[in-house]
Amino acid sequence: MYSFIYGRNPVLEWLRSQMQVDKIILAREGSGANLGDIETLAAKQQVKIERLARPELTRLLKSEHHQGVAARIALPDYVGVEEILRRAALLGEPPLIAVLDCIQDPGNLGAILRSADGAGVHGIIIPKDNAAPLTPAAFKASAGAAAHVAISQVTNLTRAIQELKEEGLWFVATDQDAPKLYTEIDLKGPVGLVLGSEGKGVRRLVGEQCDFSARIPLRGKVSSLNVSVAAAVLFFESRRQRGW
Amino acid sequence: MYSFIYGRNPVLEWLRSQMQVDKIILAREGSGANLGDIETLAAKQQVKIERLARPELTRLLKSEHHQGVAARIALPDYVGVEEILRRAALLGEPPLIAVLDCIQDPGNLGAILRSADGAGVHGIIIPKDNAAPLTPAAFKASAGAAAHVAISQVTNLTRAIQELKEEGLWFVATDQDAPKLYTEIDLKGPVGLVLGSEGKGVRRLVGEQCDFSARIPLRGKVSSLNVSVAAAVLFFESRRQRGW
Repeated sequence: MYSFIYGRNPVLEWLRSQMQVDKIILAREGSGANLGDIETLAAKQQVKIERLARPELTRLLKSEHHQGVAARIALPDYVGVEEILRRAALLGEPPLIAVLDCIQDPGNLGAILRSADGAGVHGIIIPKDNAAPLTPAAFKASAGAAAHVAISQVTNLTRAIQELKEEGLWFVATDQDAPKLYTEIDLKGPVGLVLGSEGKGVRRLVGEQCDFSARIPLRGKVSSLNVSVAAAVLFFESRRQRGW
Repeated sequence: MYSFIYGRNPVLEWLRSQMQVDKIILAREGSGANLGDIETLAAKQQVKIERLARPELTRLLKSEHHQGVAARIALPDYVGVEEILRRAALLGEPPLIAVLDCIQDPGNLGAILRSADGAGVHGIIIPKDNAAPLTPAAFKASAGAAAHVAISQVTNLTRAIQELKEEGLWFVATDQDAPKLYTEIDLKGPVGLVLGSEGKGVRRLVGEQCDFSARIPLRGKVSSLNVSVAAAVLFFESRRQRGW
C-alpha cells in the first residue's frame, strides 16, 4: 500500500532522513520558499518529481494543507496472521508474536517495530479500530524496520488470540500488578506477548484471553515504562531464554 | 536549576501534559489567539501568571520567538559523581551507572532517564560537550522521571570513568561487533554501562577505558536498536542478574 506525506517541512525531513520515497509531487503554480531544497534533495536521491495543478493535488491528498508539495511513500502491506506463523515455521522456531492492544502513538508503534525487527519477533498484530495504523510517521519512527516485520491488522483482537491459542500459542499479558515477573515465565515456546496501550494497559476482555500475566518490576518513582521499552525488554528476554 | 519554554504551542502542550510549571509569563501587550487557553489551563492547575513588557520577555528569554508567552520550568540540578555512589551505598547495592557517550537527541536522553528510574539505575553520567543536556524537552520525554534520577554532567568522560574504576567499578561498552553477548557478561557487581551516540557508537578513547564490550544480538534487517531501547535492555538484564 502507499501513503502520502505533505507540507514542506514533513517532506523535507523525510528526504533528509534518507527514507525511501516513490515520487515527489509539486503543485504546478506558485512554488514557495523551501521547494528549491526539496527539488535539489529529490534530484540527488534520484526521486522522480511530478507536477500537478494545485486543485488536483488538493483532491489527491483530500487536504488543502499541502503547501504545494507531497511525497508518495510505499508502505508494506499488512499480512494475514497465518503469514506470521509461516515465517516462524520457515525458521524452524516456535512463534514469537507481539499483540499491541490499542497502542495510540505512531512513534511507539514504530519504535516497537524497530525492536521487533532487531529481536527477530516473527510478527505483530494490531487491531483495526482505536489503534495507530502503519502510517508514514510510524514507518519513519521504525527507522525503516517496518518494511521487514510482518504486521497483521485484525478486526477482532480477542478472536485472533483465540485462534492462535488453537494453533498452540500461549499468551502473556503485561500487567503492573501481576504476581509473576516476566523473567519467571517461560517465553521459549510458541508465545504471544500482549502489550497494552499507553496509560490504560491491556483491556479486560483481551487480558481474560491470556494464559499468564507478567510484570516488569519497577523501582523508581515513575509508575510505568514507555510501552516500546517494555516491549523490547520482553522481546529480548524471550530471545535470551531461547538461547538466541 | 530552571529553564524556560516559550511559544504558544510548546507552552500549551507542556501544560496539557500535566508537567510541573513554576510560573507562566505573558507579555503585557497584544495577547494572541491561544493565550486564553493558556490562561485557563494555568488557572486550573493553579500556576501563577506573571506579566512582563514584551521587550523584557525578549531579554529574559534571549529570543524574540516567544509569541508573548513563556513558562518557567524547574529542572533538577546536576549532581557530582560521588552522589551517585552515595545513592547506591544507601541502598546497600553495588553501583549501577549508565554513561552516555554523546547522546544527541533530548528525546533519547529523556527516554533513557525514564527507563533508568524504572530499573533503579543509581545514576547517569553525561559529558558537558557535544551531548544533549537536561533540557525541558528531555525532561518531558522522561515523563518527569528526570526529577528522580541522579544525573552528573562531567567535563571529561574518560577521566570520570578512570576515577570510577579506582572506586571498583567495571565498565562495559555496548558494541555491535563485540564477541560477547550482554547476557554473558557479569552485570551483578559495581558496573558502568557505556552507551554510544546514535549512529556513531562509543568513541574510541572512551571505549579503550572499558573493561568489556558487549553486543545485543540482532536478527533483523535494520542494523541497530534505538539507543534508549538498548539502554533499557541492559538495565533490566543487570537487574535480572542481580535477582531484582
